[in-house]
Amino acid sequence: MNKNSYNIMALTPNTSNKRETVCIFGTGDFGRALGHKLIQSGYPVVFGSRNTQTPSLIPKDAEVLSHTEAAQKAAIIIIAIQRQHYSFLTSLAEILHGKVLVDVSNNLKINQYPESNAEYLAQLVPGAKVVKAFNTVSAWALQSGTLDASRQVFVCGDDMEAKQMVMDIVRALGLTPLDQGSLLAAQEIENYPLQLFPMWKFPILLSLGLVAFFFFYSLIRDVIYPYVYESKDFSFFIAISIPNRICPVVALILLALVYLPGVLAAIIQLYRGTKYSRFPDWLDKWMLCRKQLGLVALAFAFLHVLYTLVIPIRSFVRWRTSNKILSLALKNETEPLNTTNAWLSDSYLALGILGFSLFFLLGITSLPSVSNNVNWREFRFVQSKLGYLTLILCTAHTLVYGGNRFLSPSSYRWYLPNAYMLSLIVPCIVLVVKFVLIFPCLDKPLTRIRQGWERNPQYPDKSNYIINKSAV
Amino acid sequence: MNKNSYNIMALTPNTSNKRETVCIFGTGDFGRALGHKLIQSGYPVVFGSRNTQTPSLIPKDAEVLSHTEAAQKAAIIIIAIQRQHYSFLTSLAEILHGKVLVDVSNNLKINQYPESNAEYLAQLVPGAKVVKAFNTVSAWALQSGTLDASRQVFVCGDDMEAKQMVMDIVRALGLTPLDQGSLLAAQEIENYPLQLFPMWKFPILLSLGLVAFFFFYSLIRDVIYPYVYESKDFSFFIAISIPNRICPVVALILLALVYLPGVLAAIIQLYRGTKYSRFPDWLDKWMLCRKQLGLVALAFAFLHVLYTLVIPIRSFVRWRTSNKILSLALKNETEPLNTTNAWLSDSYLALGILGFSLFFLLGITSLPSVSNNVNWREFRFVQSKLGYLTLILCTAHTLVYGGNRFLSPSSYRWYLPNAYMLSLIVPCIVLVVKFVLIFPCLDKPLTRIRQGWERNPQYPDKSNYIINKSAV
Amino acid sequence: MNKNSYNIMALTPNTSNKRETVCIFGTGDFGRALGHKLIQSGYPVVFGSRNTQTPSLIPKDAEVLSHTEAAQKAAIIIIAIQRQHYSFLTSLAEILHGKVLVDVSNNLKINQYPESNAEYLAQLVPGAKVVKAFNTVSAWALQSGTLDASRQVFVCGDDMEAKQMVMDIVRALGLTPLDQGSLLAAQEIENYPLQLFPMWKFPILLSLGLVAFFFFYSLIRDVIYPYVYESKDFSFFIAISIPNRICPVVALILLALVYLPGVLAAIIQLYRGTKYSRFPDWLDKWMLCRKQLGLVALAFAFLHVLYTLVIPIRSFVRWRTSNKILSLALKNETEPLNTTNAWLSDSYLALGILGFSLFFLLGITSLPSVSNNVNWREFRFVQSKLGYLTLILCTAHTLVYGGNRFLSPSSYRWYLPNAYMLSLIVPCIVLVVKFVLIFPCLDKPLTRIRQGWERNPQYPDKSNYIINKSAV
Repeated sequence: MNKNSYNIMALTPNTSNKRETVCIFGTGDFGRALGHKLIQSGYPVVFGSRNTQTPSLIPKDAEVLSHTEAAQKAAIIIIAIQRQHYSFLTSLAEILHGKVLVDVSNNLKINQYPESNAEYLAQLVPGAKVVKAFNTVSAWALQSGTLDASRQVFVCGDDMEAKQMVMDIVRALGLTPLDQGSLLAAQEIENYPLQLFPMWKFPILLSLGLVAFFFFYSLIRDVIYPYVYESKDFSFFIAISIPNRICPVVALILLALVYLPGVLAAIIQLYRGTKYSRFPDWLDKWMLCRKQLGLVALAFAFLHVLYTLVIPIRSFVRWRTSNKILSLALKNETEPLNTTNAWLSDSYLALGILGFSLFFLLGITSLPSVSNNVNWREFRFVQSKLGYLTLILCTAHTLVYGGNRFLSPSSYRWYLPNAYMLSLIVPCIVLVVKFVLIFPCLDKPLTRIRQGWERNPQYPDKSNYIINKSAV
Repeated sequence: MNKNSYNIMALTPNTSNKRETVCIFGTGDFGRALGHKLIQSGYPVVFGSRNTQTPSLIPKDAEVLSHTEAAQKAAIIIIAIQRQHYSFLTSLAEILHGKVLVDVSNNLKINQYPESNAEYLAQLVPGAKVVKAFNTVSAWALQSGTLDASRQVFVCGDDMEAKQMVMDIVRALGLTPLDQGSLLAAQEIENYPLQLFPMWKFPILLSLGLVAFFFFYSLIRDVIYPYVYESKDFSFFIAISIPNRICPVVALILLALVYLPGVLAAIIQLYRGTKYSRFPDWLDKWMLCRKQLGLVALAFAFLHVLYTLVIPIRSFVRWRTSNKILSLALKNETEPLNTTNAWLSDSYLALGILGFSLFFLLGITSLPSVSNNVNWREFRFVQSKLGYLTLILCTAHTLVYGGNRFLSPSSYRWYLPNAYMLSLIVPCIVLVVKFVLIFPCLDKPLTRIRQGWERNPQYPDKSNYIINKSAV
Repeated sequence: MNKNSYNIMALTPNTSNKRETVCIFGTGDFGRALGHKLIQSGYPVVFGSRNTQTPSLIPKDAEVLSHTEAAQKAAIIIIAIQRQHYSFLTSLAEILHGKVLVDVSNNLKINQYPESNAEYLAQLVPGAKVVKAFNTVSAWALQSGTLDASRQVFVCGDDMEAKQMVMDIVRALGLTPLDQGSLLAAQEIENYPLQLFPMWKFPILLSLGLVAFFFFYSLIRDVIYPYVYESKDFSFFIAISIPNRICPVVALILLALVYLPGVLAAIIQLYRGTKYSRFPDWLDKWMLCRKQLGLVALAFAFLHVLYTLVIPIRSFVRWRTSNKILSLALKNETEPLNTTNAWLSDSYLALGILGFSLFFLLGITSLPSVSNNVNWREFRFVQSKLGYLTLILCTAHTLVYGGNRFLSPSSYRWYLPNAYMLSLIVPCIVLVVKFVLIFPCLDKPLTRIRQGWERNPQYPDKSNYIINKSAV
């Protein structure tokens, strides 16, 4: 091949010194931005374009040639054109034979085409080694150099050597390549930049459902009921009073739902007597979005804190306070201090403060950069020990808030209990079951199961090969 | 020395096994710290020094030799001495020929010398391959191993192979090399550690200016006016009341200024009919510091929240409340509940809480480790969709706070409107223009322009090569 | 499909194209998870097991062979079995000769065995090259792919080439290898995942001690004293009032203790006239846990803020307020505004708000991902300049809070001063000494010492080789 001889000649006097030329097909935004960055990192760059006059926006150290000429100059060709224009590449099949073609394209919709763009490219030019890369990086991020969004570049391809070459370029640009395996992974990689918080979908939908339910529940109890029976217009409760009932209730339920799947998994493992059979799918998915559930719960807890702290500034509350004092003043009365009330009020506030602070701490440790700096044991300590402590404190906060109102008939309007009473169901179940699981008669077999022991072992020698890292 | 001969013998049968010797010129803090770290990572280290007696602080596995002897033992020589002492290296030019010299030095001032230290070194020893590296790492960070500050090591140099060797050492030390291109980049790399938050300068100066303006503005309205007309001493307003007027006003203006450049850019692109011509420089710079502007705005919003929440604890406020109740009690009056006021008060508080919570969420997503874990689409969703929602909520918060006071003559003292009225100008302009831009007659051409379409195309075939990643 | 047949042909002559086979001994959780991940990243995987029937949980692309057969297929063998089962490896010594053995094991306790597992393995199979790696990664993290915990993989080993091979595998899996040196480091690496926040132990124990002391101190002053002398039951103060005395006091003392070691170090350096002699061990340890001390202080400050902001919601406080107004109403009196009190109250609140906000900012900048993105100068600016400003603001907050109560005899019950008076001792000492150290007569020699100057120099030429990066 004359390409090789050309390369060898060009490189002979100075082989080690130079990075290999990279060719870019397409002079659009992304091609230009990538070319600019490559030149900065020491790669000679040639652009392949239909129009070989150098446009003004092309980086000035780059050459612009015809596709054929450009392709001959480099072993790696970055295909920075849209999928619908790929077809012309078939005419270049001969020149592209043996070359590394880097597919950087994205689609507009998830699973827009039956096969991924990279696989389509590999079918069009069967002699080339296709590598998928760079599709998660934006032209703007490359140009501005700020790279606020991710530095991760997913790379996949069938040819190891080609993939290695592309990964070296990625590293040279200051980005982090992540090998995702063979070209089959391209579909997933192409879908990645089109995703919009997939792990957050379930937690957010669930919390929206809970918010809607408790909104109408509280509306009936707190606005419609007094309007019907006392003809009082408390519609302004919609702004703060009702949200401040919804937020703590939703936060507590979501927090309990973070710990419920762990408890369910323990029961399943105990029942099955092994950890080597898969959990049901819904449980697996639930366990994978526990972090997101917890963070949504934290957001509601945060809102609850703010809504609570503005209470004394509210016009209605100030009016109520001054009215109460005035009515006492008119009767020439003074109130004695009710120590029980003082205890209850201070306790539930204190429990709430401690619970929220621990919850906030849990939120901080789930920041990627913090969790990257703790080891596995520390991570589990924070997320399970401190997590349960948070759940206990928040449940206790709600119980003490209820205080002696649980049995008072005035708490039930139209037979509807207060919203916070409903919110206690899930956390109490989780805490009771967890408490039962701590008893040695259940904890011991569970620990053994998690270390690999099986009640009805399938492979007798497996217990020899336990690694002391239990799942979860 | 018999220790040396032993080493050589031990190494003979298994050369591939060993990392290559690294030589360090200079036994100062940084040289010693780097030597220590290199030895830890398996590199044999020799120090070159005028004084060849091993000082007590040199790592014990390292040899100390004369400069000549040390240089002969290694292919890579780290020049850990100050620039003003570089001149003696000319006498070693012959031995240093073909070696990789790593310049680790920093200056005391930005652009202290006409050329960078690394370029000066390359001039002094023209036969050597000079690489700039390690200048952003501190001796203390290397020694303590904590590396709280950055793990990034900027590397530049004209010789690819030499740069690669240095980058491998950087990686072996557990640091992240970032290739910055040729030795021309050394100037910038040397200036980097001398920078003090360059991106923050404009946002901070701007906000200080705004703070100063609104401080005097509020001082006149809230302290001097009542002193002149009512002889009341409200000087203590300087501590909380006035800051709590300044903070929300500055926060809202800065938040609007985050979104103003995007709107301006859209207008410019629509007017020009293309996205392929550069924005004016001031707009480019403004767009690059939007994140910092937003975070400064968040800081003021945070202060506003704290200042607002302490209101009921303030001695003055408690006095005012009790005085108001007492005057009603003396007149034997009670106040009826003003539902409109309750609605207004609760609404602006609720809007403020929601706005601040969303703003806080935006702040969290701008943490590097969080933004690294979202894809480009998610990043844009958070920063633009949620960002505009934040701006709308905060503007509405201010509008409702104003309520029916906008037209009340008591809001104007010496013809000066309330500060919050002034703060509404910029956000309202941004929101109105953004609202206009959403109309299909403007949104459609804008989308097409951002996808590469041009009203008066310069290169007719460019539209074929659009990559579906639009800027911003 | 002709694409497939072409591919097979294309791959035949080009073996370099393939990643090398990796062998895994042990089919436990960790072995299987690692095997799965390796296959994903393109490595052919064979498992060595006593039972060569493929168990259902083994990744389907992997082979399961006898230990002998499996070992022969690969140059790298990952020993994913527990230490107590290592002994059978001696029988395979011949086959394992020259192979790279990767020890991934962990123990149950710190320093459980006299030598590390990796060193024990190296003794058992002296002909093999043992590398320690992967022990910080959990099976669950590998399987789920979320890798919430650390991506860092500590690697150590005596053979450079073997270590390099393992580090390449680590990188291919998308993890970050950190070379920790020779196999001697294995002990430390094996202890790492068993650690539970070692740097936090001292700060947390210290703060618990302070909390206990100030709890009983406040209990005596605020609950027992009024009970004894006035027969009042203020036991409910335990929930909020007493914690809200403890938190600010502990936060201020801990914050001052963050800056005390720096001041002590300066005094020691000035006294010794050199920076080249080691600090006492306790001072070194103290300096290394300053960040943790500061963050614990921030947590207490955060609690203090929440405890303070709920004050107006407390049942007791509302009772006290209404009682005070009622008693005035009964006497038909009104209170005039006390401007001094208004000034004092607003000032200490404002100082507290500013101090806490700055403190919060310091906390944010100590997040790993934030501190990774600032240069050394910026890091020092934030941590020392802004840190001292925080200390000054918080000390001033406490001083103004005390106000004119310092000399009032009612502040002393049973000769015990208020807790906040005790908390002022350490910060005032730190600030006074720091203020003295700023005077030029002390600052100049200190700066020179920190740049390497010595009062009684040991090596006369060292001053030539100062690098302008001073420690701390």
